Amino acid sequence: MRGATRDGVMEAAGKIAAIVPPTPLISLQLNGHALWCKAEALQPIGAFKLRGAWHRLSALAPSDRAAGVVAFSSGNHAQGIAWAAQRLGMPALIVMPADAPAKKLAATRALGAEIVTYDRHLESREEIAARIATERGAVLVPSFDDPWVVEGQGSTGVEIAAQLAERGHPGPARIIIPCGGGGLAAGIALACPDAEIIVVEPEGWDDMARSLAAGQIVPVGPDAPHTACDALQTRQVAPITFDVLKARGARGVAVSEAEVETAIRFAFDQFRIVLEPGGAVALAAALAAKIPLGDGTVLVLSGGNIDAQAYARIIAKGAD
Amino acid sequence: MRGATRDGVMEAAGKIAAIVPPTPLISLQLNGHALWCKAEALQPIGAFKLRGAWHRLSALAPSDRAAGVVAFSSGNHAQGIAWAAQRLGMPALIVMPADAPAKKLAATRALGAEIVTYDRHLESREEIAARIATERGAVLVPSFDDPWVVEGQGSTGVEIAAQLAERGHPGPARIIIPCGGGGLAAGIALACPDAEIIVVEPEGWDDMARSLAAGQIVPVGPDAPHTACDALQTRQVAPITFDVLKARGARGVAVSEAEVETAIRFAFDQFRIVLEPGGAVALAAALAAKIPLGDGTVLVLSGGNIDAQAYARIIAKGAD
Repeated sequence: MRGATRDGVMEAAGKIAAIVPPTPLISLQLNGHALWCKAEALQPIGAFKLRGAWHRLSALAPSDRAAGVVAFSSGNHAQGIAWAAQRLGMPALIVMPADAPAKKLAATRALGAEIVTYDRHLESREEIAARIATERGAVLVPSFDDPWVVEGQGSTGVEIAAQLAERGHPGPARIIIPCGGGGLAAGIALACPDAEIIVVEPEGWDDMARSLAAGQIVPVGPDAPHTACDALQTRQVAPITFDVLKARGARGVAVSEAEVETAIRFAFDQFRIVLEPGGAVALAAALAAKIPLGDGTVLVLSGGNIDAQAYARIIAKGAD
Repeated sequence: MRGATRDGVMEAAGKIAAIVPPTPLISLQLNGHALWCKAEALQPIGAFKLRGAWHRLSALAPSDRAAGVVAFSSGNHAQGIAWAAQRLGMPALIVMPADAPAKKLAATRALGAEIVTYDRHLESREEIAARIATERGAVLVPSFDDPWVVEGQGSTGVEIAAQLAERGHPGPARIIIPCGGGGLAAGIALACPDAEIIVVEPEGWDDMARSLAAGQIVPVGPDAPHTACDALQTRQVAPITFDVLKARGARGVAVSEAEVETAIRFAFDQFRIVLEPGGAVALAAALAAKIPLGDGTVLVLSGGNIDAQAYARIIAKGAD
């Protein structure tokens, strides 16, 4: 497999700019510092994942499109693939956990994808997806272990740099990025070579942070606690994302479930934007002062696909 | 008082473009038609009201700024005035109903404004505000009965037209606009001379619709029902907004409280954007098919300042 490159990120950014407008870069004053929030939750599918999906699928030769695409995902990558496939007239089949948020299952189906569910605790989604892809002759698009996907997600960083420049600001000093498999973080690291990169994971699922600290890939332990951050429940990262982040001296921090809920309420109050737990971890790290809060820090708000009941429960906990 | 003009709207649009980026124009496929939603709920104060406030206050001579500004508002105009005054270093005093949403009171205070509350049922906010403005020598900025305010709000329409053009689409065919006093609607009507203009009000508070139908200003009846659309509870519109809309052949429709809640849930699900009841009425009218749904219809999502408990209650009612 080829590696992801900065040239690939720039190419992806051009392709993505042609089909969706940039998501807002929102100014945030926090403890006297001028921060920015990149609102990827406002993408048409409610998350950044259409970027990598579009870069990958649009690069297929038309003759390779008919057999379709297969992917596995807890929901946001599923919607990204389904969205891109629908635009290209390709069939899409997504392997999703049976306990994925109902909203993510419904939204993926609404984009015309076929869904096969599996038991998160007993079955291997990778095996199921690979078997179906082979049977159909379809292209398999993993959610992060793929150079096209990493490059596509990196277009987020190209937009951030352009939006700061448009407003007369220097490039991003530091970018704080939610991390499951690390595709978004590695892509942004390639896009923004001068920024400090910090990834954020839920407590107990901070395998990228521990891998970066150890200098080698370390999986999530078998005793990982429950987390509401379904989008970030990746048990092991891949060399394609890890190597980029390690070479850049990136590091990671972990946030608690309570810190994530605080961030969700903050985004409701201050931005009028709905965030899902996994999409709120970078903001959570900033609000909990777990990252340096200097000027030019950019927080990526990566997704907003959360079931209504879960969201109502979190929001109602805040004092009015 | 001078009237609002298209030249004034264009001037306002230039001034506003210099301080805040355009809010997103979001694509929406509805019943096979290509609609657009203008997300003014994503303004820094969560509503379009900073537009008129900025156009008005920034036009004051520096020597007239020291005495400050006085306004009356249920909340969004309050925040707009407080936001603009803070940027200009002006003192701001806002007369607000004692039963305004707690979030709007807190947000206005957080922007540095002094707040005087009154009883919505017993006292005249106009009289209180006029008395204080006279005592202080401060400028009084009404929420819609003012040419600067109408022109400033109209910059929304300039952005809509520019955003459609950037994406290669013809100008807006039809713009659906939440209406309290009609400042936003009249401003947009001036900005977009070729679009059909339809205003939307809560049932029982549809005085603009009835005024346009009657050809003269008709106030809200004494028996107006309770509405959650606090931002649209205006008992009587003014010639400055009415005359513009009447001359353009605008008409109005009314939506029910249930239709508004459906629209709030739709914006949560489809856009990941928080809308307040008054900010959701144009979307509500579209979802209830109370307006023509042709291509090029633009729905203005005008505000998103809603208390957390109220929002959680509405969202939780939807099936997951």
